[in-house]
Amino acid sequence: MKTPRAIEQFIEAFSKLPSIGPRQATRLAFYLINLGKAEIKHLSSALGSLQNVDVCKQCFFISESKSNSKGLCDICSDLGRKPGTIMIVEKETDLLSVEKTSKFNGRYMIIGDLNRNGSVDASQRLRISALKKQIQDDLSGSASEIIIGLNPTTIGDLTASIIKQELSSHSKKITRLGRGLPTGGEIEFADEETLGSALDRRN
Amino acid sequence: MKTPRAIEQFIEAFSKLPSIGPRQATRLAFYLINLGKAEIKHLSSALGSLQNVDVCKQCFFISESKSNSKGLCDICSDLGRKPGTIMIVEKETDLLSVEKTSKFNGRYMIIGDLNRNGSVDASQRLRISALKKQIQDDLSGSASEIIIGLNPTTIGDLTASIIKQELSSHSKKITRLGRGLPTGGEIEFADEETLGSALDRRN
Repeated sequence: MKTPRAIEQFIEAFSKLPSIGPRQATRLAFYLINLGKAEIKHLSSALGSLQNVDVCKQCFFISESKSNSKGLCDICSDLGRKPGTIMIVEKETDLLSVEKTSKFNGRYMIIGDLNRNGSVDASQRLRISALKKQIQDDLSGSASEIIIGLNPTTIGDLTASIIKQELSSHSKKITRLGRGLPTGGEIEFADEETLGSALDRRN
Repeated sequence: MKTPRAIEQFIEAFSKLPSIGPRQATRLAFYLINLGKAEIKHLSSALGSLQNVDVCKQCFFISESKSNSKGLCDICSDLGRKPGTIMIVEKETDLLSVEKTSKFNGRYMIIGDLNRNGSVDASQRLRISALKKQIQDDLSGSASEIIIGLNPTTIGDLTASIIKQELSSHSKKITRLGRGLPTGGEIEFADEETLGSALDRRN
């Protein structure tokens, strides 16, 4: 019994995606075939449309293709935002979460998935270098504030300390997001680190 | 900040797939965009190619489109297999697992995902009716053996008993897959049911 070539190719291509292994790709293939040809066509074209999305040259967030001649995203090309305040985040979804607060009016730089050993890899170094150059060119050598918006985890802390060192001479101020009790959280169940931070930063 | 339309459409379409929720669809969208346009095109076409796969009219397994004028899959159209021995399985992946044993030389009927309450739904009833008709037309009213290859779970047992009742007059023999200790398993950790079955069926 040989599996049709279309299924084999689908499984091979999709099992490489994060959190979709060969097993889930196989199940997905059969699920899709049972959905019918119209639905497969719809999904295939929805996927293909992602080709129309570009990555912003400045902050590495997404931007609609050709929406901007300079290749900048909506945020980077928004004149109402402070260009001198830059938040470094790990990934696009982190940026979206910060945007939802409507409390940040600067711009961003996406550094990319953090490494498990807390080091900064070659592609992240390139992004940091590009940021330094932007600060040099557009902000006459010094940003007014760089906020390191990385997760408050061991890996986040390690990476943050490297970034801080790298950028210390390029910003008047380098900060991190505040730590403390999450809204709705209970003191009884807070871990020592969190409760300690909440005590240190009481206000 | 508005999300590009292509991303919104992707998330909407893909979050409906099993085990991909809105959260994973969002992450997947950003992951794909960062892979680059060539890779997106490749995945989109691999997905689109699934349109070339049909579902077998007889057993509901997959078949390469137009590979067979009767709309039958490789297994159903294989003259070397016994048409009178029919294994009823839940899903395509179960069929593939049985095929890997190379120990079964009959044909199959895929009944579709079992219902949580152990009942047989309308679409499953249709498949059972179609099977009865096939047995009537092609096997002069009686199969030589129907093997109910459903999971040995409560739901599988309930469904099996309904199927058995439905098909009792259409087959000389109705069997289920044997129960006992799995190869490589340890008696110490076997549950009572499994160990009981192993005792009952000792050989």
